[in-house]
Amino acid sequence: MHKVHNFSAGPAILPQQAIDAGVEALKNFADTGLSILEVSHRSKEFVAVMEEARATVKKLWNLSDDYEVLYLQGGASTQFLTVAYNLLNTRASYVDTGTWSSKALKEAKRLGQVEVIASSKDRNYCYIPKGFEIPEDSDYLHITSNNTIFGSQYHAFPDTNVSMVCDMSSDIFSRDIDATKFDLIYAGAQKNLGPAGATLVVIKKEILGKVSREIPSMLDYNVHLSKDSMFNTPPAFPVYVVLQTLKWIDQQGIESIEKRNLEKAELLYKEIDNNELFKGTVDKEDRSFMNATFLLNDESLTDDFMNACKEANISGIKGHRSVGGFRASMYNALDLDSVKALVNVMQTFK
Amino acid sequence: MHKVHNFSAGPAILPQQAIDAGVEALKNFADTGLSILEVSHRSKEFVAVMEEARATVKKLWNLSDDYEVLYLQGGASTQFLTVAYNLLNTRASYVDTGTWSSKALKEAKRLGQVEVIASSKDRNYCYIPKGFEIPEDSDYLHITSNNTIFGSQYHAFPDTNVSMVCDMSSDIFSRDIDATKFDLIYAGAQKNLGPAGATLVVIKKEILGKVSREIPSMLDYNVHLSKDSMFNTPPAFPVYVVLQTLKWIDQQGIESIEKRNLEKAELLYKEIDNNELFKGTVDKEDRSFMNATFLLNDESLTDDFMNACKEANISGIKGHRSVGGFRASMYNALDLDSVKALVNVMQTFK
Repeated sequence: MHKVHNFSAGPAILPQQAIDAGVEALKNFADTGLSILEVSHRSKEFVAVMEEARATVKKLWNLSDDYEVLYLQGGASTQFLTVAYNLLNTRASYVDTGTWSSKALKEAKRLGQVEVIASSKDRNYCYIPKGFEIPEDSDYLHITSNNTIFGSQYHAFPDTNVSMVCDMSSDIFSRDIDATKFDLIYAGAQKNLGPAGATLVVIKKEILGKVSREIPSMLDYNVHLSKDSMFNTPPAFPVYVVLQTLKWIDQQGIESIEKRNLEKAELLYKEIDNNELFKGTVDKEDRSFMNATFLLNDESLTDDFMNACKEANISGIKGHRSVGGFRASMYNALDLDSVKALVNVMQTFK
Repeated sequence: MHKVHNFSAGPAILPQQAIDAGVEALKNFADTGLSILEVSHRSKEFVAVMEEARATVKKLWNLSDDYEVLYLQGGASTQFLTVAYNLLNTRASYVDTGTWSSKALKEAKRLGQVEVIASSKDRNYCYIPKGFEIPEDSDYLHITSNNTIFGSQYHAFPDTNVSMVCDMSSDIFSRDIDATKFDLIYAGAQKNLGPAGATLVVIKKEILGKVSREIPSMLDYNVHLSKDSMFNTPPAFPVYVVLQTLKWIDQQGIESIEKRNLEKAELLYKEIDNNELFKGTVDKEDRSFMNATFLLNDESLTDDFMNACKEANISGIKGHRSVGGFRASMYNALDLDSVKALVNVMQTFK
């Protein structure tokens, strides 16, 4: 079987060693003689997985015990609501940089005053707003670090005293950041972290307990914190594969992963800029290093280009309908060779 | 390696063929050359999985198109809230038969008037209340068909014109029932259905749209129905293994599964009743065929009995702290041989 170059936007390519470890755990988990699918989440073997998965996030980001790590269900879409339930008292400020930011603020609006303090909607989200004012009395500022659909990314985060909340679903652990700039970070696992079905939440504990509303148990961060992510049965297998992915990230080192991600992105964007058949959709300074969105100048060539990609075993590059054209998602586990294969098709196509 | 007799209460024993299919899909999903963990949920291959997983539930229960099937995240614990969000207008009636019923009504209380119309709390939930009055003006009646922790089970469902909602997490597809008695059935997958991380919801569509409150998107059944369970990224791998488990159920036939479950339960309860060292905790007529709870008359023998079980490769029979003693969970995939092994240890122990 030829290698598939997997540019899927999510669920997306994972390190082979994480998948291989998943296979082994399906067959015989931690030498229990049972599959990880049929072992109690209260068993010492699974509790150890959960603890290591929480600890590894803190290690990777060098976080003090002021922060705690949760593994929940429901994806970022559930966090859109949960964040507001737990943190929105008077008013919250949101930056709207695409589909997911818009959805996040839509859910928060049900619970209080939400102000869109900056937006790139005017140009179909092809840039990241900068230099906006952040009202000092905001309960929090919500941003989306990388916009999977539109292909833009913050390359510098706002400087503010307001508590920052960030949806990092599509670029978490792709680069060296100071996570302590944020009071809450959340991410659906299914891009850089692992399989669909697990959601990572990292919280600075002191921000909780400041709203007066009653919070349903499953949406209450304090409930989940008090039970070490085991208030109800966690998504055991997805969390297990997340742990294997985190271990791979730790072995590689985030700096080395960032370096490789830069190399991949530069190679592809160089071709997009130099190849007269194509054009990028995002302002150069705000281009995502994870999701590169680009168009054919002559749309009638779309099917031919898709076929050429298919012949080269390139998968998952059809663009989202909101942007059209193509999207190459280059998450951590994607090899430089896969980007070279795509660039090669683009050159040959010319 | 000796076979482990897996009596875990959940996550619990699954059919080997479902686990084997999971292994294959981790390696190469539907001949895509990719792992199911790294394939888009919008791919035709995964959409086919989701469609078949929904259709198979309707087939097994012979449901008309008045009903629809959803696969969600968050477990039954999230459904406790979601049910009330979508259905509770004026008042709802709940029967309290244990820990999970209590949690269900606690979450519903946040959203409206909840009346506990019957309860077995007076005798530590060791029976199923019967002959209770169901107020005709209830928006719905909520019951828990099987009580995993206390080991009791409805062997006949209430007859009522009130819309019935049932948490079937721990006995779904274990016996031949008329599912059309219910307007909504939900179940966390991690007992009879598959791995932790997927939640099944079956809804009679006409009951929706009758509440006036605004419903957050992720808690709105109509939102999920309108997107065929793909409003956000579904827990792809757990759903895949659920499908494999449903196929196994379909191959066996529910009647044959029920027959075997009866045989297993009768064998174990007979030993509990005949062996002077042990006693059951639940009134005989309400005993669960899934989770058998029992005590040693002389508690000081507990460690010895646990060791004897361990030596016989019997796993997961420690009772829940709410009941103490032992709990043998005998879900669909557990072989009669495993029950025989347990009965053998009980006899030898005597």
